[in-house]
Amino acid sequence: MNNGQPVNRSWHLASRPQGDLQPENFELRESAMPQPGKNQFRIRTLYLSLDPTHRLWTREKASYMPSVKLGEVMRGFTMGVVESSNHPGFPTGAIVTGVLGWEAYSISDGSGFVNRVEMDPRLPLTARFGLFEHIGLTAYFGILDLLHPKVGETMLVSGAAGAVGSVAVQIGKIMGCRVVGIAGSDDKCQWVKNELGADAVVNYKQKSWRAALATACPTGVDTFFDNVGGECLEAVLDLINMKARIAMCGAISQYGKDDQMVGPPNIYNLLNKRAKLEGFIVLDYAADKRWWAKAHDDMTQWYLQGRMKYKLDIVDGLENAAQAVTKLFNGTNTGKLLVKVAEEPARH
Amino acid sequence: MNNGQPVNRSWHLASRPQGDLQPENFELRESAMPQPGKNQFRIRTLYLSLDPTHRLWTREKASYMPSVKLGEVMRGFTMGVVESSNHPGFPTGAIVTGVLGWEAYSISDGSGFVNRVEMDPRLPLTARFGLFEHIGLTAYFGILDLLHPKVGETMLVSGAAGAVGSVAVQIGKIMGCRVVGIAGSDDKCQWVKNELGADAVVNYKQKSWRAALATACPTGVDTFFDNVGGECLEAVLDLINMKARIAMCGAISQYGKDDQMVGPPNIYNLLNKRAKLEGFIVLDYAADKRWWAKAHDDMTQWYLQGRMKYKLDIVDGLENAAQAVTKLFNGTNTGKLLVKVAEEPARH
Repeated sequence: MNNGQPVNRSWHLASRPQGDLQPENFELRESAMPQPGKNQFRIRTLYLSLDPTHRLWTREKASYMPSVKLGEVMRGFTMGVVESSNHPGFPTGAIVTGVLGWEAYSISDGSGFVNRVEMDPRLPLTARFGLFEHIGLTAYFGILDLLHPKVGETMLVSGAAGAVGSVAVQIGKIMGCRVVGIAGSDDKCQWVKNELGADAVVNYKQKSWRAALATACPTGVDTFFDNVGGECLEAVLDLINMKARIAMCGAISQYGKDDQMVGPPNIYNLLNKRAKLEGFIVLDYAADKRWWAKAHDDMTQWYLQGRMKYKLDIVDGLENAAQAVTKLFNGTNTGKLLVKVAEEPARH
Repeated sequence: MNNGQPVNRSWHLASRPQGDLQPENFELRESAMPQPGKNQFRIRTLYLSLDPTHRLWTREKASYMPSVKLGEVMRGFTMGVVESSNHPGFPTGAIVTGVLGWEAYSISDGSGFVNRVEMDPRLPLTARFGLFEHIGLTAYFGILDLLHPKVGETMLVSGAAGAVGSVAVQIGKIMGCRVVGIAGSDDKCQWVKNELGADAVVNYKQKSWRAALATACPTGVDTFFDNVGGECLEAVLDLINMKARIAMCGAISQYGKDDQMVGPPNIYNLLNKRAKLEGFIVLDYAADKRWWAKAHDDMTQWYLQGRMKYKLDIVDGLENAAQAVTKLFNGTNTGKLLVKVAEEPARH
């Protein structure tokens, strides 16, 4: 296929997963280098973000987005640099992020949430995926728009060592809450407590974790930022206070179950406690330019003030993407999982 | 016990129910006529309201209220007339409602949501239980505070032939919604459609009811007033639109299940649809005097304008209460179930 011509490489969805995502669900293919048409531009991918939500996109049934079809390039959040452009809004050299594909080069006309990255130069490019985009901003909007935390309240965060959860823990502290994390290993718990500042952390893989959670929340739970669903959501529903708010950010415990998902049998405790369970998707907030900008300002300031950290887990090489994505489901990932696809250009 | 002295009669909780409430869970006892102490008054019960929520109150575990203890007088919403008083706020002859007991006479100091009934004289006293109190006002606040219906949206109501549901259907129509009811018999469905004005009604006891429900909601479901929970909630979660709102008013399908309750496995559709599920209890709204009064005004006006109907199912005699309550759970009740305990006094 190559013959000395420049090529693109892209991961295609080869089969629908049974259970968690497996490397064999994807197939790496080469193709001719794509050329931008009218009002289009070509992006050289720098980083590919690997996210739990990929599991939802590979289901037969649509989730909050259409499913990826068999044979299609796998969808992903990416950051890249424009290297050939017929679009005045996206000139050569511009850094962009977008919902594009697991591929070395993408063609875009600016649709699909493709945006130019304008970021404080004191922040590294990769901070984009630690603090902003579908990671930090998910935590930000989930907490500020849905949870409305009050000073002194108890906020619970599941998946607290994950990319979104780790930011949620820190925003909870900035909001003045007592923050309790739930994570899946002692190492993760240590990190969430010692580095992110959670007041308590519970390892949900330990047998008596539900009792430990109750002990860690002596005055009950006022708000819950849930990335996990399933038994985790059930455990928390037993502990909620009157007028509790639960933001359903994700349900990674259920993503592999397709038609065997389990709902919490104590969901009716929402009635007893006059409480609220609400789902949200960060992409919806992009339409509110002012709030979106405010979120970027707040997150940037918190980071520069040293009140906000993030951790990256960078895997080198697009060819390793299908293997790397399994880390999200087998518990071996801490922080934001990225695939480095190409070297960053010098920043101006 | 009698010996010519006036006596009280009261139903006591004799055993905790397995499954639905049964007559043998209650025991009728006689006792000496209670005398009001300082700042107390005695109420002669006129009507006892029988409600699905009684099943929750008889559980071992507290719900939104403490459980009734074994041997205690069974708790109930009642209407009565003050016939002996040491309390200036509740003079002899005053009509009151309150959360009191399944009994012929109650002693009160005004706590326990006991309020004097001030009602438009054009309305019969029993309208109190059709349109106001924990029935009509539950529908009112659930819809206006939680569902925020918009003109032209599709509103679903489960338990649509029940006391609360039948009011919810009519408020939905007044708000300009396309209202679809779910009920448990063809007769009930006819009543909800022909008398209450629902645009469509589905009988959930028919085999293909979930398909019928989807057909009845061709543009999906924007709001759902749920009295039933369980499979009903699950069916609706499959049909919700973006930003749908669900008010969890009750879950009668689950009340008899105690620790065998089932949560909807598709609860995660709240995430896909950025939707909200929220519990509420009407008694909370009593603290907001202005809104409470507005609700009474609205309901009274709608009734007098002929836009709001209610149906009563009145069983005669306190001694029949324990048998009558089973009607709520075996599907033989339509409209508001009341026990007439004593004759109404003439109104002034």
